[in-house]
Amino acid sequence: MESTLIPRLSPIAGVKRRRILRIGLLGLGVVGSGVAHILDAIHSTAYAQCGAEIELAAVAVLHKEKQRAVRVPHNIITNDAWSVATDPEIDVIIEVIGGEEPARSLMREALNTGHHVITANKLVLSSALSSFHALARVNRVQLLYEAAVCGSIPVLRSINMLRQTDEIISLRGIVNGSTNYILTAMAQRGISRDEAIAEARAAGFLEADPTLDLSGADAAQKLAILIHHAFGEYVLPNEIETIGITNISHSDIADAQRRGFTVKLVASAIRSERCGGIIARVAPEEIPFDHPFASTNNELNTIELQTRYAGPQLLSGKGAGSLPTASAIIGDVVRVIRL
Amino acid sequence: MESTLIPRLSPIAGVKRRRILRIGLLGLGVVGSGVAHILDAIHSTAYAQCGAEIELAAVAVLHKEKQRAVRVPHNIITNDAWSVATDPEIDVIIEVIGGEEPARSLMREALNTGHHVITANKLVLSSALSSFHALARVNRVQLLYEAAVCGSIPVLRSINMLRQTDEIISLRGIVNGSTNYILTAMAQRGISRDEAIAEARAAGFLEADPTLDLSGADAAQKLAILIHHAFGEYVLPNEIETIGITNISHSDIADAQRRGFTVKLVASAIRSERCGGIIARVAPEEIPFDHPFASTNNELNTIELQTRYAGPQLLSGKGAGSLPTASAIIGDVVRVIRL
Repeated sequence: MESTLIPRLSPIAGVKRRRILRIGLLGLGVVGSGVAHILDAIHSTAYAQCGAEIELAAVAVLHKEKQRAVRVPHNIITNDAWSVATDPEIDVIIEVIGGEEPARSLMREALNTGHHVITANKLVLSSALSSFHALARVNRVQLLYEAAVCGSIPVLRSINMLRQTDEIISLRGIVNGSTNYILTAMAQRGISRDEAIAEARAAGFLEADPTLDLSGADAAQKLAILIHHAFGEYVLPNEIETIGITNISHSDIADAQRRGFTVKLVASAIRSERCGGIIARVAPEEIPFDHPFASTNNELNTIELQTRYAGPQLLSGKGAGSLPTASAIIGDVVRVIRL
Repeated sequence: MESTLIPRLSPIAGVKRRRILRIGLLGLGVVGSGVAHILDAIHSTAYAQCGAEIELAAVAVLHKEKQRAVRVPHNIITNDAWSVATDPEIDVIIEVIGGEEPARSLMREALNTGHHVITANKLVLSSALSSFHALARVNRVQLLYEAAVCGSIPVLRSINMLRQTDEIISLRGIVNGSTNYILTAMAQRGISRDEAIAEARAAGFLEADPTLDLSGADAAQKLAILIHHAFGEYVLPNEIETIGITNISHSDIADAQRRGFTVKLVASAIRSERCGGIIARVAPEEIPFDHPFASTNNELNTIELQTRYAGPQLLSGKGAGSLPTASAIIGDVVRVIRL
């Protein structure tokens, strides 16, 4: 008699009905174009690799007639994001419009109409994580957002996996590519903060209004999401002590360098029994040259986890950019198929 | 009508029959003790976290009466590894005896009698990967070995996930903790190679016969396994050009340091259309101080993947040690439950 209730792998069955996952994409900007590009590139191999055919069924854009670098069939492009988000023939909504509205309402509507939702929108998520989780649970759908934190790095999946059998003691990371690009330019080439900001904007790493990045607010949003996955608590970004890089001058960096340090904007969180909760903050820190954060340059992000059994775990990769961010979104698409 | 064949999450069902996963552990040395320790520690939470109760059902050891630091009920300890490996009441065999025989035959027998097998044995795997994969396929069981490559780092799982939707272009890594411990001691404290080897042995990072580590053979074994997962090819360790650290002297390291480099033993592989295959080697390399490999010290391992879409992906963590290695094995146990 076998004691196990764990299933063995099932024998190869006859030809099965082909599974199709139909995607509705909201937004065709930097990240959306990357998503469309990868979906097109992997189309012929997706079934063999992922167990389902992945079909880009609809794309909602603001300007329908705009010329685009990415190949998307004209007949699936629409101005009507609401009809895509509520379309019963679509399985998964990928939201890459960004910003507050209409992204927030579109995602809520998509969840309420039974769609799995994948998003890179840390702004909306970080303030609504608890209610969005509840909405996904009630509607029995997945809400996935690996791309919202550290772009290409599968940090949420790694934390989730670790927590099944281990314990996260603390986490620390460089989670904002824009400020890291600016600090790297100031440190490596000795240019002023304003010159570095102008360069970052020209390289596409800053919004027209860079306040969210420079103030540390974007890093605090990501940290709030990380804290939920690492420690199981809901924390709002404005509850996190946040100091940005607006007061960091070239001479601060030059002075640190003379003493063997470089300056990085670091998001950190540690569970503290003494303070009855979690100590979290975003602030510039002096990092010794021989620490892995010191070699995390430009748009790279790095996360360092301290765990009880596995010890330190470090993950690094691009925290921004079209294809790196899109690759994390496609990773979530595969998870929807597998779950 | 919904087009999808992708299942929604099922509604909460009534109380289900509790799933139990019964583990047979072969070996209770450094890694085996770590496995037993973590299984004991997570016993009460495993069902909630992993969806199954994990029960340590039998432990095979060489010396049954030996005093052990880890708590294992005396009645499940046996001298008879063969009876454990073939026990039909056991679901998963964890092999942490190490070395060639009897580990190889025990694993083969366990697979042939319908057991999932989890192992950290890179020596056996690297030379038998193809035949072991075939054996697992025929017997419809899982063969998992995350702990065999880079200890605590989930590098094989990361590569497998990436390859579903991306392409690995190249990989490079510090994959041998013993030689890295020795090179770190020589570089940071200016001691001789022989002194560093003696220290590494005292710290438990070297076998009595350190040849496999020092010659680079252990790194080549790990690289062969990595190559299979990254590129889908079976390569034997002895087909990989391998240069160890036996000829690296203190003055080589001091000379590199004066020029801004540190010396690391690097395993690397790149797919090359030109050469009709894969170019792979293990060799000491001079690494610039600002490269992440330079801050990979002592028993840490680091793997750097270059991918088509996600860009560079870096993973770092402990490559050796009781609990870090055991944590990777426990991660594989969870995968058996989930698959």
